[in-house]
Amino acid sequence: DVRDAVVSFFRHKQQNEGALAFKRIVVTAGPTHEPLDPVRYLANRSSGRQGYAIAEALADLGASVTLVTGPTDLRSPAGVTIIRCETAREMQAAVSRLENLDAAICTAAVADWRPATEAGQKMKKKERNDAPAPLPLVANPDILAEISSSGSSRPTLVVGFAAETENVEDYARAKRLRKGCDWIVANDVSPAANVMGGHENQVILITSDSSEHWPRLTKEDVARRLAMTIADWFSSKTEY
Amino acid sequence: DVRDAVVSFFRHKQQNEGALAFKRIVVTAGPTHEPLDPVRYLANRSSGRQGYAIAEALADLGASVTLVTGPTDLRSPAGVTIIRCETAREMQAAVSRLENLDAAICTAAVADWRPATEAGQKMKKKERNDAPAPLPLVANPDILAEISSSGSSRPTLVVGFAAETENVEDYARAKRLRKGCDWIVANDVSPAANVMGGHENQVILITSDSSEHWPRLTKEDVARRLAMTIADWFSSKTEY
Repeated sequence: DVRDAVVSFFRHKQQNEGALAFKRIVVTAGPTHEPLDPVRYLANRSSGRQGYAIAEALADLGASVTLVTGPTDLRSPAGVTIIRCETAREMQAAVSRLENLDAAICTAAVADWRPATEAGQKMKKKERNDAPAPLPLVANPDILAEISSSGSSRPTLVVGFAAETENVEDYARAKRLRKGCDWIVANDVSPAANVMGGHENQVILITSDSSEHWPRLTKEDVARRLAMTIADWFSSKTEY
Repeated sequence: DVRDAVVSFFRHKQQNEGALAFKRIVVTAGPTHEPLDPVRYLANRSSGRQGYAIAEALADLGASVTLVTGPTDLRSPAGVTIIRCETAREMQAAVSRLENLDAAICTAAVADWRPATEAGQKMKKKERNDAPAPLPLVANPDILAEISSSGSSRPTLVVGFAAETENVEDYARAKRLRKGCDWIVANDVSPAANVMGGHENQVILITSDSSEHWPRLTKEDVARRLAMTIADWFSSKTEY
C-alpha cells in the first residue's frame, strides 16, 4: 500500500545516510512451532512484537535488515526482507544461508525441544481412561550459540535475548557466557510482568562489563533505544 | 461499532421470528492451549473459523448462541455471547455451567492430552547435548462425550466434529458411537486438503442412519447449510 511504499522509499534513502547505512543485520523473531503430527504442535507465547519492532528500528537507521520470523500475526514491516519459517530447524537453515552479516539480533523464542518424531497422520487417542504415553523430546539446534561460534563468518556483533521468569539477571549473564554472544537483552516474562504478548517491555542490557537496567518502555521504544545503542557501538569501533 | 449494532439488532429481531427462535445453543470453537510452563504450551492448528461461522449462522436463524472459544485471532461475532478460555479444562468448566441448552455444536479442537504438570517457572534446558526427558502427558476431559451423556440435562441435539487425516468417514462413524453424540461433521484436515486454518471445508454429515457428502464450500456456506439442517431437524421434531 501507499504507506509501505513511502516507508520503503525513506528506508532506501537512509541506507546511504543513516547511522547504520551499509550494515547488514539479521533479526530473528517470533516463536517456533514444533509439530507432533499434522494437527498438533509445541509452541510458546512469543508474539514476535519486540523482534519486529527491532527490525523496523534498525531499518529506520539505514541498516539492510533481514527478518527471519516464526509464525506470528504481525504485519510485515516495510523495507525489510522477510523470511518465514515455522520450526527451529527451518529457522536455523534460513539463518545459516545468510552471509556477510555485520550483526545478528536473536530475539526469536526458539523452542529448546521438539517432539522426537513427527507422525505423518493424526495421532489417535487410545481407549478412554488409558494414560497417554510420555512424549519423547529431542533438543533443537541452538541458533544463537551457532551464530556466536561461526568463526571467520561470525557477525561482528551478536545479541541474544533471554526471557526468564526468575533470577533474570543471573540467568542472562550465564547465558551470555554459555552462548558466546556479545550482548544479552534480558527480560522478565513471568505472567505478572505481562511482557509475553504485551505491548511493553522492561529489559536489562548485559555486555561483557556492564548491566544497564532500562525503564519500562513500549516495545517500539526498547527497539529504538537498542538500535541507537548498536549504531553507537559500530561508530565507536570505526573510530580506531 | 455500527455494523455490530445493526447485526445485533436484526439478530435480536430474529430471536422472535427466525427458524431457530427461542433455541439456546452452545458452540465450542478454536484450539485449546495446554501449558507446560509460563511460556510453553501444546497446541493445535484449529483457527476457530468454522466454529465462529456456525455460531453466526445459528444466530442469523434466531438462535440464542453462546460461543465458548479457545484462543483465536478472529473477530468476535456480533449478537453472540462469547466465553473465552484457553485450556480444555477451562472449556469444560465453561460448558458445564450452561443449562437449558437445546443443542451443543462442538467444533473446538480440544487437545486430547495435556502436560501432566505445569511448571511454575520457565523450564530450564539442561547442559547442551543432554537428551531432554520425555514429556509426561495426561488425558484431558472429553467435553463432547460428557455433554452427550449428561442425562436429563442433555441438549436435544449434540453435534460433534471429527478432524481426521485418513479414513475420515470410518473414524467419524466410530467416533459418533463412542462419544454418544447425535451427528458428526467429519472433515479431512490432512495438509493436502488445506482445511485447517484455511477458508474452505469439505465435510460429511454423519447421522444415525445416513452420510451426506457435501461439496467443497466456504466455511461460511458449510455453516449456513448446517444451521439450516439443524433448523429443519428441530421443526420436523415439533411436528409430532
